Amino acid sequence: MSSTSFNPAWIIQKKRDGKELSHEELREFINGITSGEVADYQATAFLMAVFFQGMTLEETVGLTDVMLKSGDRYDLSHIPGMKIDKHSTGGVGDKTSLIIAPLAAACGLKVPMMAGRGLGHTGGTLDKLEAIIGFDTQLTKEQYFKNIEELGCAIIGQTSRVAPADKKLYALRDVTATVECMPLIVGSILSKKISEGSEGLVFDVKVGNGAFMKTKDKAKRLAKALIQVSKKMGIPARALITDMNQPLGYAAGNAIEVKECISILRNEKSADKNSMDLKELTIQLTAHMLDLGGVVKSIAEGRKLARAKLADGSAWKVFERLVETQGGSLDLIRHPEKLAQSPQTIIFKAKKRGYIAKMQTEEIGKLLVEMGGGRKRITDSVDPGVGMIFHKKLGAKVQVGDALVTVHAPEDFDFAVVESRLADAIEITGTRVAVPKLILEEF
Amino acid sequence: MSSTSFNPAWIIQKKRDGKELSHEELREFINGITSGEVADYQATAFLMAVFFQGMTLEETVGLTDVMLKSGDRYDLSHIPGMKIDKHSTGGVGDKTSLIIAPLAAACGLKVPMMAGRGLGHTGGTLDKLEAIIGFDTQLTKEQYFKNIEELGCAIIGQTSRVAPADKKLYALRDVTATVECMPLIVGSILSKKISEGSEGLVFDVKVGNGAFMKTKDKAKRLAKALIQVSKKMGIPARALITDMNQPLGYAAGNAIEVKECISILRNEKSADKNSMDLKELTIQLTAHMLDLGGVVKSIAEGRKLARAKLADGSAWKVFERLVETQGGSLDLIRHPEKLAQSPQTIIFKAKKRGYIAKMQTEEIGKLLVEMGGGRKRITDSVDPGVGMIFHKKLGAKVQVGDALVTVHAPEDFDFAVVESRLADAIEITGTRVAVPKLILEEF
Repeated sequence: MSSTSFNPAWIIQKKRDGKELSHEELREFINGITSGEVADYQATAFLMAVFFQGMTLEETVGLTDVMLKSGDRYDLSHIPGMKIDKHSTGGVGDKTSLIIAPLAAACGLKVPMMAGRGLGHTGGTLDKLEAIIGFDTQLTKEQYFKNIEELGCAIIGQTSRVAPADKKLYALRDVTATVECMPLIVGSILSKKISEGSEGLVFDVKVGNGAFMKTKDKAKRLAKALIQVSKKMGIPARALITDMNQPLGYAAGNAIEVKECISILRNEKSADKNSMDLKELTIQLTAHMLDLGGVVKSIAEGRKLARAKLADGSAWKVFERLVETQGGSLDLIRHPEKLAQSPQTIIFKAKKRGYIAKMQTEEIGKLLVEMGGGRKRITDSVDPGVGMIFHKKLGAKVQVGDALVTVHAPEDFDFAVVESRLADAIEITGTRVAVPKLILEEF
Repeated sequence: MSSTSFNPAWIIQKKRDGKELSHEELREFINGITSGEVADYQATAFLMAVFFQGMTLEETVGLTDVMLKSGDRYDLSHIPGMKIDKHSTGGVGDKTSLIIAPLAAACGLKVPMMAGRGLGHTGGTLDKLEAIIGFDTQLTKEQYFKNIEELGCAIIGQTSRVAPADKKLYALRDVTATVECMPLIVGSILSKKISEGSEGLVFDVKVGNGAFMKTKDKAKRLAKALIQVSKKMGIPARALITDMNQPLGYAAGNAIEVKECISILRNEKSADKNSMDLKELTIQLTAHMLDLGGVVKSIAEGRKLARAKLADGSAWKVFERLVETQGGSLDLIRHPEKLAQSPQTIIFKAKKRGYIAKMQTEEIGKLLVEMGGGRKRITDSVDPGVGMIFHKKLGAKVQVGDALVTVHAPEDFDFAVVESRLADAIEITGTRVAVPKLILEEF
């Protein structure tokens, strides 16, 4: 097909009318967006048409493939061992990556992890790691390869050469109300994930009031699409649908989350009981990765191995080496009480007795962002010391005056705002409530 | 509402989710497009969302009002008499404006006619008038007012100051597959039509294989929307749904259509019988205008008056004065045989006997454009001498060798192309076929 016969308006019309686009048509259109041959105003009309008409599996594969090929794809085939990564769709207090990378590596996998920054109300792995002073997420390709080979894992940010088409599309989606669109989400996630060099992927698809997917139905559709498209791209995949109706673990905020991860990685007996869900999910995700990578023969065996590698300190050792090789302060992780902590401490207490019935998790995440613990724009900097410790999670029984949340806020942040926002976000009822299931489905 | 709280993405999302936008929201968004505060890529995402979600009557009124107010609106209130105009949605051989403006003026109305150029497969009033050498469609505001006052009519092109928001939107719609969208069509037509200073409007909504609306259902919806929105804007309106399954009259092409109009305006007894539909539609549209303007008390009375003003030569006199005051050659209209005619004459003949069953009117219009008689881009120039004369219309009985169409083509245009395209476009069947009704509905 010659480029003279390519008319972007026809492609838009075809999608508008619900017809299936060929890989070739998608290639021309998406590459045209990156090159400028397709105008931005044509790109966004197309994106909105996709929002309404959706995409078939074949189209989503085509889209993912074009976006993947728009940039670099790391080839890790010279490194022995199976390369398996995990990807979460994002939530509040969702810090499993920091534990999973060293833990899965300690169990024998190679984990090439290209992570993101927080955006919207959710946190990001890179922001968390940067709470460890000196930690460098911008490794060269050689360092990235070397760490995966020698430590079994590396955690880096995406370079500008990864899926530039996705970057362009995402920037356009962000300002045209076309973010919440299944095939576009799938293409965006997979084009980046596949480029990091993984041979298998485990997805943690969050569902609930703190997730992007608010309903189980949507989460399931996303999980299935991620698996189907991955497989079509030659990457075996699994997905877990997990609860995000409350923050995961006891902590939300960058430094405080690192602290929580350290207590799990050190397998501390005194670890906060509110970290139970975090530990459980971490072990289950790791078990799936181990099973997918052929290190174990079943999930049960994977769980056992993961627990053993936490218990014997080998996961912690890999974490120490990961931090060390990426330039982070060993002193800080060995003495996590030295990690940043914002100066103002606010203890939010229960105004009535009863049971914690609801936590408006997205609102909690937004309050963190407003205090400076997250970013509104990708160019914002974050304050690692801002954070929250949740003393009571869903279902917990509380008395009047019980501490519910300890908040570390910047000095000038209005105490009353924190009080009123948390009072709105956390609901206490008189009758006992059921604790939500952590892992809803596994595919 | 302060401009700082205006977020274009929220407006797009609201429309995407099918919620009704307020006039204020539409005003901010549409004005933002014109001013550049709303990026083009946001405008087109919005337009595609409107394509899928539609607009309520109130929203369409809001859109029309904002586009109207984005430019100049002529105030003709100082000129005595009712100002009524007609607007056609476009077709092939659709030349009623050239007759209606002077005829309605001769009957006592004021006709402030802001007309367009041909685009796509359809012809345009301005292109037709410019076949009369010297005819100037770019009058000053003073000349426009003076001609309406003194002659009762003027036909001009839109100035750049008329509905600039519509110009911007149309340019974006044209390249993003968002042209065929009812509320956007309505807003575009009405913002321009109301700006010309009319106090009442009669719409000729074409339906059929040569019209933009291919089905009666769509044509009816457009007709009703045009009437409803006009009324909400304080402009009483009528609409006729008329057939466009064959060219209107005997001629298609610029100079040849002027010639056909002249034969009607002169009320020639020898006028081609294939002009009957043109004359009938012209009289009916004029009768509606006269009734709407209160010049007569019924359509029947309006038809009688229109016929009388054609018969007594007064419509022709107004046409002569119109041409004269707008700088056109009186010699040419008095001797229409001197009008431009392309050098190559091709007579397309029937290959079999039977009845004319179908004329692919859009294809016929496209052939005219390809020969240079229309424009592919708004900046193209047209060849006034290119044209077609239809000797047999739908339902006509034909013998082998009968002349069906006489084509005037440029010297270098391939004769074989004309032959094959017309052979594809005109279908002859063995059995007698019903002649389509000219006027399908009147609202």
